[in-house]
Amino acid sequence: MTACRPSLAVVGATGAIGGVMLQILSQHADVWGEVKLIASPRSAGRKLVVRGEESEVLELTEDVFDDVDVALFLVPDEVSAQWAPIAAAKGTVVIDDSAAFRLDADVPLVVPEINPHAVRIRPRGIVASPNCTTLALIVAVGALHAEFGVRELVVSSYQAVSGAGREGVAALREQLSMVAGTELGTKPGDVRRALGDTEGSPFAAPVALNVVPWAGTEAGDGWSSEELAIREECRKVLDLPGLRVAATCVYVPVVATHSMSVHARFENEIAVDRAHEILATAPGVVLYDSPAAGDFPTPSDVVGTDPTWVGRVRRSLDDPRGLELFVCGDNLRKGAALNVAQIAESVAAEFPQRS
Amino acid sequence: MTACRPSLAVVGATGAIGGVMLQILSQHADVWGEVKLIASPRSAGRKLVVRGEESEVLELTEDVFDDVDVALFLVPDEVSAQWAPIAAAKGTVVIDDSAAFRLDADVPLVVPEINPHAVRIRPRGIVASPNCTTLALIVAVGALHAEFGVRELVVSSYQAVSGAGREGVAALREQLSMVAGTELGTKPGDVRRALGDTEGSPFAAPVALNVVPWAGTEAGDGWSSEELAIREECRKVLDLPGLRVAATCVYVPVVATHSMSVHARFENEIAVDRAHEILATAPGVVLYDSPAAGDFPTPSDVVGTDPTWVGRVRRSLDDPRGLELFVCGDNLRKGAALNVAQIAESVAAEFPQRS
Ligand SMILES: NC(=O)c1ccc[n+]([C@@H]2O[C@H](COP(=O)([O-])OP(=O)(O)OC[C@H]3O[C@@H](n4cnc5c(N)ncnc54)[C@H](OP(=O)(O)O)[C@@H]3O)[C@@H](O)[C@H]2O)c1
Ligand SMILES: NC(=O)c1ccc[n+]([C@@H]2O[C@H](COP(=O)([O-])OP(=O)(O)OC[C@H]3O[C@@H](n4cnc5c(N)ncnc54)[C@H](OP(=O)(O)O)[C@@H]3O)[C@@H](O)[C@H]2O)c1
Repeated sequence: MTACRPSLAVVGATGAIGGVMLQILSQHADVWGEVKLIASPRSAGRKLVVRGEESEVLELTEDVFDDVDVALFLVPDEVSAQWAPIAAAKGTVVIDDSAAFRLDADVPLVVPEINPHAVRIRPRGIVASPNCTTLALIVAVGALHAEFGVRELVVSSYQAVSGAGREGVAALREQLSMVAGTELGTKPGDVRRALGDTEGSPFAAPVALNVVPWAGTEAGDGWSSEELAIREECRKVLDLPGLRVAATCVYVPVVATHSMSVHARFENEIAVDRAHEILATAPGVVLYDSPAAGDFPTPSDVVGTDPTWVGRVRRSLDDPRGLELFVCGDNLRKGAALNVAQIAESVAAEFPQRS
Repeated sequence: MTACRPSLAVVGATGAIGGVMLQILSQHADVWGEVKLIASPRSAGRKLVVRGEESEVLELTEDVFDDVDVALFLVPDEVSAQWAPIAAAKGTVVIDDSAAFRLDADVPLVVPEINPHAVRIRPRGIVASPNCTTLALIVAVGALHAEFGVRELVVSSYQAVSGAGREGVAALREQLSMVAGTELGTKPGDVRRALGDTEGSPFAAPVALNVVPWAGTEAGDGWSSEELAIREECRKVLDLPGLRVAATCVYVPVVATHSMSVHARFENEIAVDRAHEILATAPGVVLYDSPAAGDFPTPSDVVGTDPTWVGRVRRSLDDPRGLELFVCGDNLRKGAALNVAQIAESVAAEFPQRS
């Protein structure tokens, strides 16, 4: 039986997203034949467990894609940029989680709840998965868009440090142990002085007892790359090239799960009861919205779960076409590994059942 | 000499804002004659230092306002609501930092950089100072408004726990010592379980390793009282009853200094260079905006300082009349004691120099 199912390669199996992917492969209904685990030469020979069995990590080479139907790329941008086309040239369908191909016109950018059809048209044999910030947002906004027609998004993020990888988490943990139990945080510069120059941190300012309004690199006219990514990726996934998007990306001292405050304007007037109904039934969304009773999503509720959680849903007081939302999504799950797994499963369904 | 200057009462001298006020009175040019320190019967008899001299705290009574020209009310809403009219009836000018009178049509709501003239028209003898979230925002927005004409604000806050008083700070410090040095923050519910039901915390969810999108009380249709306060107070201070405001208030694990991501739309097209110029020269504003070099305001830079710091200034990509900003202001200084002190100093200047 197993041998007749499509075969899979997980490239970057040893990374943060790779680790979550191995969990998901063990938990989801098993649609795969052979699963190869792949990483850099540094990790070749390591043993990892997937689907309950030990498996040896292979070095990334051209040959490794022989007989691989689908490959998940969970590696840095430059590794994807180089190796995804090599795998695709061998006939392997590549699902890439890096930024390398997200805005390539010949690569679909897929969120299965929103644009599942897009996965079929992949001239380069590559399918891309959005940035974790886009993913925290788009499942909820896409569900509302289908009914009300979204025209504008103003988004402010509260991003978890794991969005900056393992180093982001290490920086927060180290800084927290230095400030916890102190009286720091009320005098000019006391946090900065206590933490020194926060060497090795991927953040440009202290992230403990602080917020850092800068994510990614300089992208021109004062924008950060992460802010522009949200704009371009939302436009592409929703197929709305004229969507107005103004994003501000801010890291907060949270380990995992990105939150966003969203002001959305639609073409049509909003009935807030209907917005609640849509969000309560949309696939991949949990509505958690009774704030006076303490029911609103926070990272501590959402971390480790699959869906996008939505709360604080209210109509803009000064605009009948405006809606405010607060959304939370685990950046390591739906924001990365889970979305890639969902795309891969829909591709697996394309393969003829060869049993 | 001293006896001829206006006399002052600080009501709530023993509180968090009261403490900062005593510092400010010691640091600013001294315009006051006698200064009386007042609190509840609980604190009567305590000695506090102001202007380098020890002074005994008096119990709040009607008689205490005899011969007091100006009284600063730094006390809970209900104490202001009861006692400010009593003081005013004695001819004392009351500057109130509570929410009791902010939206009273017969009480001016004053930010000296924006509407200094408003302080003169005070039919009830009471002048109010805005909420700390409004104050973090309005000095920068007001300066831009004077040139471009503001029409709409979409605001998401990153509020410090001291905005919820001494208990807010205590809750964060306690929770941080419980999570620092642990691996908490990546598994479903692990932070919530570790912190128990966060008894005694003024926040409806954990505030360590988390963000809490709820500030104040339920104010109808899903809005929190703090969110509506920003809307009503910005409208009143800017004298723009039709200003469109959509605010989302979120607590973050920061001790002091509120930050806000602001999307502002103006009547006129924005020249971003001119916006920079305005912010660089506006009174009470520091422009700190070279993000690629790491120059953007964060609470750790701003805490303990007087001005509103502004960075991340950029024109909205899809709207020539839109501007994005990130602002930070110390909620205990400009957000409270400093603004009250500035109002009081402008009132002091009304008194004839009786020397
Ligand atoms: N963190 C997030 O929230 C998030 C969200 C969405 C998307 N992503 C994207 O997902 C990708 C992986 O992120 P991550 O956080 O998992 O990074 P990570 O923890 O640093 O893991 C990187 C992985 O790539 C492998 N790798 C690095 N260089 C390689 C090479 N030359 N050849 C083969 N394998 C190589 C590493 O293998 P070794 O162990 O052998 O070095 C490791 O398995 C990135 O493109 C990232 O942008 C991350
Ligand atoms: N924290 C902020 O960021 C902030 C910002 C803007 C405005 N505010 C406003 O400023 C006011 C004070 O806030 P806070 O943070 O300083 O509060 P706090 O630390 O709790 O201090 C309260 C003060 O009020 C006094 N008080 C309480 N009940 C009294 C009574 N019945 N008679 C006389 N005095 C009484 C207390 O005196 P005892 O010591 O004798 O109890 C103490 O001096 C509040 O209205 C608050 O909303 C706060």
